[in-house]
Amino acid sequence: MGKPRKPNKELRKHFGRRVRELRKARGYSQEELGFRTNIHRTYIGSVERGEQNISLDNIGRLAKALGVPLHDLFEKVS
Amino acid sequence: MGKPRKPNKELRKHFGRRVRELRKARGYSQEELGFRTNIHRTYIGSVERGEQNISLDNIGRLAKALGVPLHDLFEKVS
Repeated sequence: MGKPRKPNKELRKHFGRRVRELRKARGYSQEELGFRTNIHRTYIGSVERGEQNISLDNIGRLAKALGVPLHDLFEKVS
Repeated sequence: MGKPRKPNKELRKHFGRRVRELRKARGYSQEELGFRTNIHRTYIGSVERGEQNISLDNIGRLAKALGVPLHDLFEKVS
């Protein structure tokens, strides 16, 4: 596999900010988004802080619960 | 965490088709995309077949190597 790879902290933080922005726009608490995604609220908090290398399946769950197309999760954070 | 969750096969396949589409549009082999992303070519093949729950960091590597904004990886497959 060649050289070890660093976590992409910038991307994780960018993605987390976008999740938080959309969650707040819908008036959801982390608890409520957790309930809607079946993802634990502490994991959602950690994603929002840019700490997690979240997987495609969970990205899909977030998009569905937030009611946005997947690509919307990757638009610029306002 | 509540009930166990199934893999989102539809999303994985959709994502994989988009990666393959963009890779071929650039004339890259799986080997070349592997070289450009520092991801093993067999893993790239597996992602393209919709078998992997790929992580955000690796999604970012693919977008960078394919020269597209991240949200482009989530557009509809043509």
